[in-house]
Amino acid sequence: MEHSFIAWAKQRASRLPKVKLGIGDDCALIGEESWRSSESDLVVTTDSLCDGTHFILSECGAQAAGRKLMAVNLSDLASMAATPVAVFLSLCLPRENAGDCAALVFEGVYDLASKYQVAIAGGDTNVWDGPLAIHMTAIGKVDNNRGWLRSGATPGDAVVVTGKLGGSILGKHLTFEPRLNVAKQLRDLGIVSAATDISDGLGLDLLNMTVASKCGAELHVDSIPISDAAESCSQTSGKSALEHALGDGEDFELLLAIPQDQLARMPSDIDGVSLTRIGTFVSRTGLWSREKSGVKQLPPRGFVHR
Amino acid sequence: MEHSFIAWAKQRASRLPKVKLGIGDDCALIGEESWRSSESDLVVTTDSLCDGTHFILSECGAQAAGRKLMAVNLSDLASMAATPVAVFLSLCLPRENAGDCAALVFEGVYDLASKYQVAIAGGDTNVWDGPLAIHMTAIGKVDNNRGWLRSGATPGDAVVVTGKLGGSILGKHLTFEPRLNVAKQLRDLGIVSAATDISDGLGLDLLNMTVASKCGAELHVDSIPISDAAESCSQTSGKSALEHALGDGEDFELLLAIPQDQLARMPSDIDGVSLTRIGTFVSRTGLWSREKSGVKQLPPRGFVHR
Repeated sequence: MEHSFIAWAKQRASRLPKVKLGIGDDCALIGEESWRSSESDLVVTTDSLCDGTHFILSECGAQAAGRKLMAVNLSDLASMAATPVAVFLSLCLPRENAGDCAALVFEGVYDLASKYQVAIAGGDTNVWDGPLAIHMTAIGKVDNNRGWLRSGATPGDAVVVTGKLGGSILGKHLTFEPRLNVAKQLRDLGIVSAATDISDGLGLDLLNMTVASKCGAELHVDSIPISDAAESCSQTSGKSALEHALGDGEDFELLLAIPQDQLARMPSDIDGVSLTRIGTFVSRTGLWSREKSGVKQLPPRGFVHR
Repeated sequence: MEHSFIAWAKQRASRLPKVKLGIGDDCALIGEESWRSSESDLVVTTDSLCDGTHFILSECGAQAAGRKLMAVNLSDLASMAATPVAVFLSLCLPRENAGDCAALVFEGVYDLASKYQVAIAGGDTNVWDGPLAIHMTAIGKVDNNRGWLRSGATPGDAVVVTGKLGGSILGKHLTFEPRLNVAKQLRDLGIVSAATDISDGLGLDLLNMTVASKCGAELHVDSIPISDAAESCSQTSGKSALEHALGDGEDFELLLAIPQDQLARMPSDIDGVSLTRIGTFVSRTGLWSREKSGVKQLPPRGFVHR
């Protein structure tokens, strides 16, 4: 299977941007001209998706799984303000229809590679008796010391999110748009002090950001933008829509720290994606909700795949 | 599981070489100082290993699987004459004892990371209902246009292999040494025109090399260095030891093209690893055996995981 798939994938990837040496040798070569613009750092992320955990193959199909794999990796690059350069795809394929499955995963990856002009530069295919497991490493570039870290927030910075949160299990976790364009425009504005993407849930990812930044955060929970899907979920889950927005994983929106004196320069939306201030980083560690009666501790109800 | 594992892994990796930003944020950052020496290309490879296909977890344990994963990726870098910089590890872990399993895989990776001074710079862990599937992307560097390709062989170049071939299934496939040191010394000598590593079997990998180089190869089959393991296998397999040396996969030795006028500069061994000339690249495509009675076509009996 592997050789004919590699030949096909190589041909298919030939219309995407190229690296110096792509699919077909023992390794890929990324020439410095591909990624170097003045003084760049390499930004590298890797993510795996497993059938039954991150997608249900029998329900969504292999192409949607491939698209999600690419979107998850690109979301990580967006959260560092990086520009994607190349991705590497590695597949553990169930024996039955392995070739078709590989081609569909590739097509899902290709959709976003084409949209964001990213090279598919290499990979590995394996057939086994297990379920579908798909893996990607994405390499991007960012100007030296310009990448956004989780650890850059300072007390007083605003907590800002893109889009609306919660209920992604109803579909968005497969179809979400990685926030590369939003990240690019915010990077050009130079107003972001820290960032991450919301993969485990707003509460947990914000907590991680405060821990990395050695501070806390106070949320105005009434300001949290709640998705229609979170409302739908709340009708049967026994949880409020707000709890879904705080706790559901896989929103893949950006969670940003923006200094107060830069807030006036923050657009209210970028290409139709809203930017909403939902709170403030504070020196007191932990997550807090500012209410009329005072300040209450918030449990980080993030979702972790178990 | 993930958060405590990440904290542990971060601590464990802290004695290895570091990249600018390693384990713990959305992506890793590889600063140019880490990999750039004069004008370097990035060399990237990715490989997955699956329980039941590339290792039998119940027989070899997770640490041996992790070591193999690292060795396979480093072997790919060696075959391009690259110096390893950083690796990224992504795990799909069976639910039972997932944490212990992750730690053992990491230790296996760590053994070789420590030996060859490579950063473990990031990764991803997932727990699922499938068997163990482990994935790595390795990033190396090589001076601009100095990396060895499969496609560089010219008719007249000698076909050279390191070590002894065949029967790696008896153990070497788990314990082999990636030929980084051999590659480094040969690169410094500047005598290699093309290279790959033997993963699918001498016959198949040599055929791939000839196809990439638009030529063929004539082997002196009596010169092929046959391992003791190949001899052992032949006692029960119904195949000759030579057939094992030609056809068995996962030797992970280097297969090299060395121009005739450089052969005198080729050492007979490097750090105890033999270098053996086994034939000559020729203009006639295909694989051939030079015998007293004339020239006979060789079937490429390479092994492919099915």
